[in-house]
Parts: sequence; C-alpha cells; structure tokens
Amino acid sequence: MTAYEIISKKRDGLPLSEDEIKYMVLGFADGSVPDYQMSAWLMAVYLRGMSAEETMALTKTMLHSGEVVDLSKIKNVKVDKHSTGGVGDKVSLILAPIVAAAGVSVPMISGRGLGHTGGTLDKLESIPGFRVDYTIEEYARKIEQTGVCLIGQTPEICPADKKMYALRDVTATIQSIPLITGSIMSKKLAEGIDALVLDVKTGRGAFMQSHENSVALAKQLISVGEQFNKPTVAFITNMNEPLGKAVGNWLEVVECIEAMHGKGPEDLMEVTHQLCGAMIYLGKKAGSVEEGVALSREMISSGKAWRKFLEIVAGQEGDVQMVERPQNYDKPKYKEEVVAEKDGYLAEIDSLQVGLTSVLLGAGRLKAGDIIDPKAGILLQAKTGEKVSKGQPLMTIYADKKQVLEEAKRRLAEALTYSNQPVEKEPLILQYLDKTSL
Amino acid sequence: MTAYEIISKKRDGLPLSEDEIKYMVLGFADGSVPDYQMSAWLMAVYLRGMSAEETMALTKTMLHSGEVVDLSKIKNVKVDKHSTGGVGDKVSLILAPIVAAAGVSVPMISGRGLGHTGGTLDKLESIPGFRVDYTIEEYARKIEQTGVCLIGQTPEICPADKKMYALRDVTATIQSIPLITGSIMSKKLAEGIDALVLDVKTGRGAFMQSHENSVALAKQLISVGEQFNKPTVAFITNMNEPLGKAVGNWLEVVECIEAMHGKGPEDLMEVTHQLCGAMIYLGKKAGSVEEGVALSREMISSGKAWRKFLEIVAGQEGDVQMVERPQNYDKPKYKEEVVAEKDGYLAEIDSLQVGLTSVLLGAGRLKAGDIIDPKAGILLQAKTGEKVSKGQPLMTIYADKKQVLEEAKRRLAEALTYSNQPVEKEPLILQYLDKTSL
Repeated sequence: MTAYEIISKKRDGLPLSEDEIKYMVLGFADGSVPDYQMSAWLMAVYLRGMSAEETMALTKTMLHSGEVVDLSKIKNVKVDKHSTGGVGDKVSLILAPIVAAAGVSVPMISGRGLGHTGGTLDKLESIPGFRVDYTIEEYARKIEQTGVCLIGQTPEICPADKKMYALRDVTATIQSIPLITGSIMSKKLAEGIDALVLDVKTGRGAFMQSHENSVALAKQLISVGEQFNKPTVAFITNMNEPLGKAVGNWLEVVECIEAMHGKGPEDLMEVTHQLCGAMIYLGKKAGSVEEGVALSREMISSGKAWRKFLEIVAGQEGDVQMVERPQNYDKPKYKEEVVAEKDGYLAEIDSLQVGLTSVLLGAGRLKAGDIIDPKAGILLQAKTGEKVSKGQPLMTIYADKKQVLEEAKRRLAEALTYSNQPVEKEPLILQYLDKTSL
Repeated sequence: MTAYEIISKKRDGLPLSEDEIKYMVLGFADGSVPDYQMSAWLMAVYLRGMSAEETMALTKTMLHSGEVVDLSKIKNVKVDKHSTGGVGDKVSLILAPIVAAAGVSVPMISGRGLGHTGGTLDKLESIPGFRVDYTIEEYARKIEQTGVCLIGQTPEICPADKKMYALRDVTATIQSIPLITGSIMSKKLAEGIDALVLDVKTGRGAFMQSHENSVALAKQLISVGEQFNKPTVAFITNMNEPLGKAVGNWLEVVECIEAMHGKGPEDLMEVTHQLCGAMIYLGKKAGSVEEGVALSREMISSGKAWRKFLEIVAGQEGDVQMVERPQNYDKPKYKEEVVAEKDGYLAEIDSLQVGLTSVLLGAGRLKAGDIIDPKAGILLQAKTGEKVSKGQPLMTIYADKKQVLEEAKRRLAEALTYSNQPVEKEPLILQYLDKTSL
C-alpha cells in the first residue's frame, strides 16, 4: 500500500478500504504522508465523493487518531449541539445553560470563527477572564460540577482532524460532505457525548448554501452518529439573514444575557428553544421534543438558565460582575449608523456580506493568528419583513479602526434589499431529521 | 487573485484565464505557491480537465518559465521527434543519425526512464563516456557541427515543468492530457525546433492505454504545436508488446547498432522509418512522408546513418571503439532463460510486465536517484504471432542481482499468453494525424 496508489484509486472514483483511509489519515497525522500528497487526495475526495462506508471509516479513523473522553462517571445523559456555522449564531451560549439547568449534561468542545462566521470560543473569550483552554481532566470535572464545560479542541482530541482541517482550509477542500462529516463527528464523538443535536445552516450565510446539500449533510451526520449508537437528530435552519440582531463577539454575549432575561429576539429564541427541546428530549428529561421545548422556555422564565450561566462563567474563571453589568464593558471608539435608503419593506439582509463586514471591523480573523477586537461588530436595528422609512437607522457599526468604517458602511448598505410590497418572512426552521429520515 | 481562488475555480469546473494559470505555475516555480496548493490544483485539473485555450496558456507559461534556445544560426530545418514512452522504445538512437544524415538537424532534449518505460538518456549513458549534460551553448554548437545533439533537460529549460513533473509523479496526476501537453510541448518548443513529429504510444505498455485517449492527446499536441507555427504531425503506434527485441539500456544500444547495419527487427524498423520519413518531409528534404521513408531506408543501406552515429558518439565524448566492438562490453553476472510452457502460437507479450520486470532487474529506477545497471535487461527470442514449441527459449534475462532472478522469471512467464490457433499480428502504426485531422 502506498499513498500514490490510494490517491490514484480515489482519483479514479474507486472506493477505499478502511485500511487505505487509515494509511492516508494517520500517515498524514504522523508526518509519513506529506502534505502535498494529502492535498491531492483531499481534492480527489472532494470531487469523487465517498460512500457511506468510507465516510464511516474516515470518521472512525479521525476519532481514534486521538483520545476519546470518558465521561461515564457522570450519571446525567450527556448531549451536545453542533452548528455548521452561521452569522450571529450565538445559540450555544444560551442553550448550554438552559439544557444544563434542565438536568442534561453538556460536554461542548467548540471552535473559533471561520471565514465570515463567528466562533463560540471567540464569543466566550470576550468575557474578561473566561478560559476555554482546560485540560481534558479539568473539562470532565467541570461537567460533573456544573453540568457544562465549554472548551476548545485540545491536542489529545482528533489530532488528525486538526491537521487536515488546516490543510483543507488552504486547498479549497472544506465544503465536502464526507470531509465535513468526518471532521464534525470525530470531534463530537471524542468529547464524550451520549447523543447529539445538529443545527445544519442553509442559505447565503451558511457553508452549505443549497437546501439539498444541507439535507444530504444532515443525513450523513445522523447516519454516522447512529452507527456509533449515539442518537442524533438534525434541524435544517435558515441562514439567509443573520440570527438575532447582534454580530460581533461581545455584542452577541450581551444579546445572550438579554435573552436569558427573557428579552431575546424572536428568531434567535425560536432556534434556541427547538435545539434545547431536542437536547432535553435526547437527555431523557422530556418525553418529546415539544415537551423539551416547553421545559426550555421554563428555564428562561424561571431564571434558572441565567443562574446556570453565572455559574458557568464563574466556573470557567470569567468576570461575573461584568456579565451582570454589561454596561461597564469598554466602549468601541467609533459608532456609525447605516440608514434606510428608501421607504419600503426590508426584503433581504445578506448574511454573508454582514459576516464578512464584521470580520473587516475586527470581529473575526482574515488569517490565522489575527487578533480579534471583542467590541467590534454590527447591531441590526431591523430584520427582514419590517416596514422601514427612508433615513431610519437599520444597523449600527462598532469598531476601533477608523479606516474601515466607510467600506463597512458601503458594504452593509449593499447587503440590504428593499421591496415596495410587504415581504413574507421565510420560515426559520426548515426541516427536522432523525434516523427515520435516512 | 489568490491560489485559493484559482484552485476553487478549477475545482468547480470553471475555465481559468492565462493570468490565473501564470499565477499558479510561475508561483509554484518561484516558491510563492506552496506544493500542497499546487497538488490540489493539479488534481482539480486532472479531474476537471482544461479547454484548448487553457492548455495553450499552460504551455506558453511553462515555456516562458525558462529560456527558449535560439538555433536560427543553423540553416537546416530543425526537426525533433518525441515519443510518449514505451517499452523497448530505442527509436531515437537510430532516428537521430538517419535524419541528420539526410540533412535535417535534430535538436533533441530527452528524458530518463520513467516507471516501466526506459529513457533515451539512460540508454545513451550506457555507452562509456557518453555525455548528455552539455550547456545550451555547447548543445547549439554540436547541432551546428554534426546536425544532432542529444542532451538532458538543463536548468534553463522550462524550470516550471521540471518542478511540476516531480510533484505530479508523486500525486498521481501524470496522465492528464492538458498537463502532458504542457509538459511535452513546452520542452520541445524550448529546444529550438522548427517542426515536430510525435510518436503517441497506445496499449498495455503505454501511459495512454486507450486508443481514444491517445488520439485526443495527439490532437491536443498538434493543436498547440501549430498555434506556435511549428508544423506538427503524430503517429499513434501500438505498444501492446515491446518494440524490437531488446529491453534494457546497453542491450538496446546493441540492437540499435545492429539496426544501423541493416539487421534491425522488423517492427522497430517500421516505426523508425515512418517517423524518420515524416521528419525528413517536415525538414524539407523530401516531398512527402513516403519519399522521406525511402530516403530513411537509403541512409541505413548506404551506411550513412551508421557513420553519423559514430560521429555523434565521438562528438558527445562516447567510446567509439566500444560501439564498433560491442562484444567487448562488460558481461552481466547472471543469464536465465524463460522457455515456452507449451506448443502453440505466442498471442501476447505484456509490455507493461516486461517493462516492470526490467526495472526490477536494474534497468530502471524504482525511485529517483536509484543507480541503473546498464547491462541488465531482457532479450526477447520471439515476438507475438510466432509459432513456438514447449521448452523453446522465449526470453533471456540478464542481471547482476541474483536475488531478483526467480521473481523476474516468474513475472515474465506470466507476461506470455499462448494460443492454439495462429494469431493475427496487430497493426503497428495505427494512425497518422496532422493539422487536417483537428
């Protein structure tokens, strides 16, 4: 067996055996397969695809390239949620405390901002002092104590994925269903879950822009999860406009704080409660997703989710006083308004453009290692479907970098589409899938 | 423009502009595009293909990545031949002296053995003292003096091709028509030709195994040559069995010496005279390919080709006495016979297997940098179509390595197929193409 032969087989559309997949993935992880052979193979996988069996073998190989966390000491059912990434998607910060408050443990290994989308770790780190770099042992202990721990990928978790992801990121091989499946599922299976809820975003601001591809990805993810005996369900949700009103790390934390006080934007809460409902159901604290949703709403109205959030912040060394008094946070130097160009109805807010502009403002990274400005971002003053009048502020831009303000304003103005007629709001939750959908 | 964007475009099947192709190829040559991005791009090109315009832009870019030799001082028409590589293909060694003796200059930059196929440079270097590493200036001077110079690729000639070829060789991206076209034509155009004759091998022992792909490659090569105003013609020739009877460097030189004395095997001479005929015609020393073929035969029968060969050997510092008395050459340590397993007709001699076995014996390289044994190889005692009797020697194996003899015998025995019925010999020259075929 040689890397050359394995590349040739995939290039010619032939299925690979588990041993051949192991040869490439583990060989790349340990350096015996050079990056230039791996990238040729990744492109062949991208263009030729992988069967369900190959995708399963890939996931298994990536999973066992590192440690699998053992959380069996914890009696609660352990359920995580994974989102394929969107603009303004701060759901994890509200969802983790809700679900934990309902008695389901949440082991959550998250990522950083990627391209135009934000990352949970960057949002959490905008809370002064908040740490996401605990060891596996500390992570397990914190889940035992508070029911939640939110950390970043450790060196022990799926090292093959970490290295492959970095290569895919520079060789245009990210958007491949088998490669995405291997990457997501290996990490989720490694973190110690019993069950998994997926939020597969679709539309302009998502990595999977077509509904069809999103469903195909969701099915592949469910299939792999179920083969590992981890009940897995998925929601396909709309990412044509940003979720909620805040885009940018601290701005999103503030929106989450408001949400946990019962003042969250409608769309954000709808997605959050659905995902929480499914997690509480899979966590065996409700008899159905609907009952789970009701329990989720109760966790907000009773204040239990908020108290759990404070507990999480304290447990992960964040500044509790700051989340209790967010008005004390540093203010950005510049603030600009984007106003309505005409009277009418807001027909579209291009979430891809909003995401890219937030990166420009400093809320994300143009390249690995860039430093994020936690204060930078965009607050939407209106969402699609709303009636607006010429001159009315539609977005507020926050940044410390003066030189990008004009471009940001121009790009955000271009991200808006108006209609003379009332606009029907697109549905937010497009589809629910579980193993019966396969 | 970024490498990422260019990879994405090709991945999605979109055509690339000349500037985008330049960005990748010249960037890879100068190190600004890393090998892992280049190999992802090469795999995308392999699987998505390139239009005629893109292939032309690729060739131009590769050609101008280095020097183009100026042979305008030489009054004769300069015509080269390129073969896509086969087993036992020693045609260049007979063809160059024939064509030069007929008054056409032959500027010939050749390659080394590749995979299961031999290389002209390795064959020439089996002649003691023969040098193939002259500078471009010496190369031009020798063509002026003797009408021929046979050298290897110099650092000035198509440096981008050299680096790309090495990467393609380890990433399973060799057999791509646009990439082969760019590689062949950039080198041929750089060496100073006025016209070009192509020998596109097809069948088991060729890189292009299907007739259809061979024709497509030939047309692409002709199209690029003609766009550079270099009249280009191609023969599709059969490579199902080895050409001639010798496979192995010095063994092939000896076969060429015999051929130049009028004792060459029929198939080898048929291909050689056709290619020479076309070169002499394109070199304006004959009114048609047929007249060229007649002149080619005359160069052998008159002894002029042989005298030109001695002149070339002397000019490139080879041992003239050794080619005049080849019986004085070092003898290989071991000699083994492969005999007929049954009475019947020889139906097939698998040239791929013969080629691979010759590499095993030491006649080629398993990896770059391996040292070749010039004495090692295989002599066929019979060719397909011949009636054979059980126990009759069909092949003789020569090697210095005892440990490979048994495997070589077994593999060569397996390369032979017998028939009880007389076997009709396959045609050798399958097709002739020129610009009117496009």
